[in-house]
Amino acid sequence: MTDLTLLSAREAARRIAEGTLTVEALVRACLERIAAREATVRAWAFLDPDHALAQARARDRSPASGPLHGVPVGVKDVFDTADLPTAYGSPIYEGHRPAADAACVALLREAGAVVPGKTVTTEFAAFTPGPTRNPHHPGHTPGGSSSGSAAAVADRMVPLALGTQTAGSVIRPASFCGCVGYKPTYGWIPRAGVKLLAETLDTVGVFARDVPDAALLAAVLAGRPALRLPEEAGVPLPRIAVCRTPEWAHAQPGTQAAIEAAVAALTRAGTVVGEVEPLPEQHGLVDAQADIMAYEMARALAYERTQHEARLSPRLRELLQRGVAIAPETYDRALAHAARARTALHRLFGDYDALLVPAAPGEAPPGLEATGDPVFNRSWTLLHVPCVTVPTWWSPGGLPVGVQLVGRVGDDARLLAAARFLEQAFETTTRP
Amino acid sequence: MTDLTLLSAREAARRIAEGTLTVEALVRACLERIAAREATVRAWAFLDPDHALAQARARDRSPASGPLHGVPVGVKDVFDTADLPTAYGSPIYEGHRPAADAACVALLREAGAVVPGKTVTTEFAAFTPGPTRNPHHPGHTPGGSSSGSAAAVADRMVPLALGTQTAGSVIRPASFCGCVGYKPTYGWIPRAGVKLLAETLDTVGVFARDVPDAALLAAVLAGRPALRLPEEAGVPLPRIAVCRTPEWAHAQPGTQAAIEAAVAALTRAGTVVGEVEPLPEQHGLVDAQADIMAYEMARALAYERTQHEARLSPRLRELLQRGVAIAPETYDRALAHAARARTALHRLFGDYDALLVPAAPGEAPPGLEATGDPVFNRSWTLLHVPCVTVPTWWSPGGLPVGVQLVGRVGDDARLLAAARFLEQAFETTTRP
Repeated sequence: MTDLTLLSAREAARRIAEGTLTVEALVRACLERIAAREATVRAWAFLDPDHALAQARARDRSPASGPLHGVPVGVKDVFDTADLPTAYGSPIYEGHRPAADAACVALLREAGAVVPGKTVTTEFAAFTPGPTRNPHHPGHTPGGSSSGSAAAVADRMVPLALGTQTAGSVIRPASFCGCVGYKPTYGWIPRAGVKLLAETLDTVGVFARDVPDAALLAAVLAGRPALRLPEEAGVPLPRIAVCRTPEWAHAQPGTQAAIEAAVAALTRAGTVVGEVEPLPEQHGLVDAQADIMAYEMARALAYERTQHEARLSPRLRELLQRGVAIAPETYDRALAHAARARTALHRLFGDYDALLVPAAPGEAPPGLEATGDPVFNRSWTLLHVPCVTVPTWWSPGGLPVGVQLVGRVGDDARLLAAARFLEQAFETTTRP
Repeated sequence: MTDLTLLSAREAARRIAEGTLTVEALVRACLERIAAREATVRAWAFLDPDHALAQARARDRSPASGPLHGVPVGVKDVFDTADLPTAYGSPIYEGHRPAADAACVALLREAGAVVPGKTVTTEFAAFTPGPTRNPHHPGHTPGGSSSGSAAAVADRMVPLALGTQTAGSVIRPASFCGCVGYKPTYGWIPRAGVKLLAETLDTVGVFARDVPDAALLAAVLAGRPALRLPEEAGVPLPRIAVCRTPEWAHAQPGTQAAIEAAVAALTRAGTVVGEVEPLPEQHGLVDAQADIMAYEMARALAYERTQHEARLSPRLRELLQRGVAIAPETYDRALAHAARARTALHRLFGDYDALLVPAAPGEAPPGLEATGDPVFNRSWTLLHVPCVTVPTWWSPGGLPVGVQLVGRVGDDARLLAAARFLEQAFETTTRP
């Protein structure tokens, strides 16, 4: 008998629709996996097994309602849920029960998904960690801020989960945990009912165990069925180039090995991997992103900063103080820099479908006091481009490292096809 | 003795700071005005006089805490408030009490303001009216969606109020009610804790009875003290041009008279008012805005649409259905059109500081079943440019009509100075 926690979301939905799998059996398998592993991984901020099973049985009683009918999806605890507590990773909101579901959660339910619980987020999706551990080594961070979503998917607790990225909060934890993370084009997935952190940057993203599953979930949330990858047919040979961005010196041996492994697999699969020079406009984008994020956070979290300062972590308090001190002129300059770089970006891509860049500095660092460095994510988030990470290398200690593929704004379908090609090249050429 | 409800926010704050006026006296005067007029105007979705007086006394006991110390500010009921119910103009949220203040409300309180209550919004800030009536003629609409804020400020119930604009929800009601409305550059005022309607468009704006008061409130909310206008010195002679946008045919006699009155006053005050031709890129922007708004609304309100459809007004339900049916390709084309027009906009402005355009088709139409047509606002909202309306004409029936000045993105200070010049030109040249 198949271990149901190994099923892709697509396969699970297919079996449920054809009547060879009940939603209850699938949800029970997920809950059993969570029961076995949660004490180690601590991916869940809130989990209600009975409520999950009740949803499952209701799905079993009704005809297939959408492309995710019966599929369990973990929801990062910065998305409001009317039926589950939502605390945004902060003691200020302990036990808070929103009046409504976030738009994304409503869209999940409309598509038939089951929401078993809320996954751990860092404090307000910033940098102060929650309790989650890396499923491959509990002494290492899972990355953040979507810590619980990345860990839960990588650890087979759920096939899919929602996250958000403001600096590197989807791509980095996915790379650290060894799953696929996909941050679509900025603005494609609605943010209504998500706790805002920095409006210019906040982007809803998804976690899955392969690229087609990530594409399926994003297709539902973005209302863009064309994002789904063809199930049977292969994807065309992509044109991919490595881009050594100005942050390249931060790439540790693990990330260099992951990039080399990706290039080798792509080459063996028939692609000639090129290389492009970063644009002058890319220099300084990491600092611009950090300024914009701190400036906007200090304003978006004005209520918490002014009314509940004592219940903020010292790290967050410090970041908000930095944000308050940033002059509007500095912020405006950073926004203008980003706008120039966005306009110039077509020169960077040239004829390529996607750029191959690091997802993170290396494997997940040891310790749970920090979530790692988003240095390889900040500029792409600011540029609003779609990004996908796919795991391509494992450290001797058993920790995964992903690479990141970056596409053009609005051309997510082309990026996802390239990422799928990389994933398949990897599966067919380097695994036994 | 001065009627305290005639004081500007600046004058009230000055007197409070120097100890010649108590906050309690000011708030009492506002509450008395509300008590006298509310049965006619119906500007308030929720008002708690005791709570307002308690805030006032607390302000009187503490030293001046910010530039709005003791100033009452009405808050549109799409901004979350932790101490007052927040229903977003919908029966779905009747009695809802948010866990937090919206960022803007927190910033108001940090600046020392008193929030006496929540002003009426249309349903989710879309097009289905609330109960508010035009303070100059109760048989006419006050405009929407910030109906209560515009009416309350125009009727001297409060000197200042918050609104939001997605199509024309600040400028149109301000024009209909005869007060100043100011929609700053998109993104300048944080939206955290505001019920989102259409993320590409939603812009927080302000209502006041003169331009310097509007500038003061926006300066606080945007964290841009440089927006404040100099209190003593005059403003420089602005360069202003009329722009007959593609919607010009919708301008009724009242609006034509308002534009003519503004040109006449500006000319008498020493400005040569020019004229600029609209850009080709401006054609079709009104339709693009309507498509983007419907598309994004259907997603932002996914929870209400899928879980509470029966409690939505028929008009909103229809608009959401239209939004659901808009193809992503149509939406993407509309966004691309807007991006092209934004890039081209510097050609339109040339050397001018501000463009003079209609604020609304004419005076407030009769009837309370609709809030008027945002046809003269949709494109400017989509372009993310700052807009100010100033009343310049009154109909024989006693209804005001404003004109709209439009500035460059990010150059709000220049726009506000031009609007102040217009306001002063009007005061000094056409009033007895």
